[in-house]
Amino acid sequence: MKYLGIDVGGTKIAAAVTDEKGRILAQSRCPTDVKHGCIKFADDIYKTVLKLLNENDIKIDEFQECGVGVPGTIDTENGIVRYASNLYMKDVPLGELLTQRMGIQVNLENDANCAALGEYNVQPDKDKIKNFFMVTLGTGIGSGWVINGNLFKGVGGLAPEVGHTTIEAHGIPCVCGNIGCWEMYCAGHALQTEGKRLAGILPKSKMNILAEKYNCEINGKIIFEAWKQGDDGASRVIERYLEYLGMGISNIVNGFGPQVIVLGGGISEDQSILLETAQRAAKEGSYCKNIEVPEIRHAILGGSAGLVGAAFLKRKK
Amino acid sequence: MKYLGIDVGGTKIAAAVTDEKGRILAQSRCPTDVKHGCIKFADDIYKTVLKLLNENDIKIDEFQECGVGVPGTIDTENGIVRYASNLYMKDVPLGELLTQRMGIQVNLENDANCAALGEYNVQPDKDKIKNFFMVTLGTGIGSGWVINGNLFKGVGGLAPEVGHTTIEAHGIPCVCGNIGCWEMYCAGHALQTEGKRLAGILPKSKMNILAEKYNCEINGKIIFEAWKQGDDGASRVIERYLEYLGMGISNIVNGFGPQVIVLGGGISEDQSILLETAQRAAKEGSYCKNIEVPEIRHAILGGSAGLVGAAFLKRKK
Repeated sequence: MKYLGIDVGGTKIAAAVTDEKGRILAQSRCPTDVKHGCIKFADDIYKTVLKLLNENDIKIDEFQECGVGVPGTIDTENGIVRYASNLYMKDVPLGELLTQRMGIQVNLENDANCAALGEYNVQPDKDKIKNFFMVTLGTGIGSGWVINGNLFKGVGGLAPEVGHTTIEAHGIPCVCGNIGCWEMYCAGHALQTEGKRLAGILPKSKMNILAEKYNCEINGKIIFEAWKQGDDGASRVIERYLEYLGMGISNIVNGFGPQVIVLGGGISEDQSILLETAQRAAKEGSYCKNIEVPEIRHAILGGSAGLVGAAFLKRKK
Repeated sequence: MKYLGIDVGGTKIAAAVTDEKGRILAQSRCPTDVKHGCIKFADDIYKTVLKLLNENDIKIDEFQECGVGVPGTIDTENGIVRYASNLYMKDVPLGELLTQRMGIQVNLENDANCAALGEYNVQPDKDKIKNFFMVTLGTGIGSGWVINGNLFKGVGGLAPEVGHTTIEAHGIPCVCGNIGCWEMYCAGHALQTEGKRLAGILPKSKMNILAEKYNCEINGKIIFEAWKQGDDGASRVIERYLEYLGMGISNIVNGFGPQVIVLGGGISEDQSILLETAQRAAKEGSYCKNIEVPEIRHAILGGSAGLVGAAFLKRKK
């Protein structure tokens, strides 16, 4: 049995065919530009799916439905993207737009919820985990919460949006309208913005040298690489990033009291310093120091957690 | 049928006898000093109960058990106060200490959880409220969360401790060990500290005049009264307080997605400006602007929510 999952973000669209255990059999990725409206965006998603299927000689009618993870607040019942700041979407019937193109039922869900569901389902000890929290450190920060095996969602599908809780009361304004949201300090764009800012001040920084070498903009990977090489500017960027990461993890511990927190998303791949920082924060930042410390784990599915989780979606129904 | 509830805080102990609907039939309050250890504290609680019973001609054996709300992380199963910063307690078997004195079973619970349970149970539309969040603005900030009629608690009884989530990343260090916790800006002690600080700078402030008139320290009531009289210093204190209140409420909306948020605790009594500020923040601060806005309500039980909820405790079992 094959399943089809799609994960859309601010910079790329990914589509995958998985088996029943969540193993990816084939996948395809395309860059996207979200600034040209939702019709173009739906077309781009459909093209990504067609590319995936054509390249792997799979027909769309092998699937009855597919799951789509979207970074925003989703009305899952009606397939509507209520609000997605990184996609510039508000009340967009993306489910219907995709069903029209693909001819099969499309199940929308918040991408971080997809990631949480996917990761929860592949944890070897999942039956013992009653309170499972996942943080996705990607272009933005997503979060998903699985209580007793089910996704927890608040009124209207909102919550937990920990990326949009204020952590720096007089800090950087967020696109969501609030001030100093965690996302403005710990998302990929925040890391990149701070890296570029310091690289601009410090022209000899290895961040600039690496950007030239790779012929690309300064990004998270370059900043981490420069930091590992002992670069002063990159170190300042990473230290600041880790400080806010720890605070955000402490906030999750004190707010939600999870047993396990999984870190996923592009930034967290292979960066064990994030795991160590988060584990320390979970211990030291807990309001109560003498109870079980939540365990921080890397996403098993890596950056594909949302994609695999989207493919899992239909099987939860 | 009569029920016995006790609510302990950093400055006072309250005990009440209630009927089955949570109406207070008799109550007694005593000041306390938490710095003399847990034995003295248990003695003080017992004395408060004896005073209540003696004054109202009630015998202790009219009760089979009683509930006690404590501001901290509680191991409810074993009656142990795991951590309570305002009471200077860590791993204190308060349940056992009280059972020894009172001769009846004592059920401990986090005080904000008690308040949430009490308030939830007296809401006229409680059966329609699936996601109910209560914030107690007292000496500290407590919070309790009722999902589908039951208290939600995290690992080890922790959470939701929204008062101990960082809202000002480089702000005031909190007694819990974290930095810039919400409690450091919106709890009673924070309001008082800021009021005293500004009154010290502004000797002509009405805060000083009122403190002299009432022959007491500057406190929340004096600050609000001076603010209503148009005092400049008090206005600055209140504006700052309301700014942080709004941010904290937005964080609750985005983190927990409640349908109803109830504001309780000493600070919130009769201060409709708090309700208005919180309602505005719930609307404007929500990550998703086009879904149902959580309704902010004043605690029906006022400052007695925790006390009444404690008396309700046993009836939930």
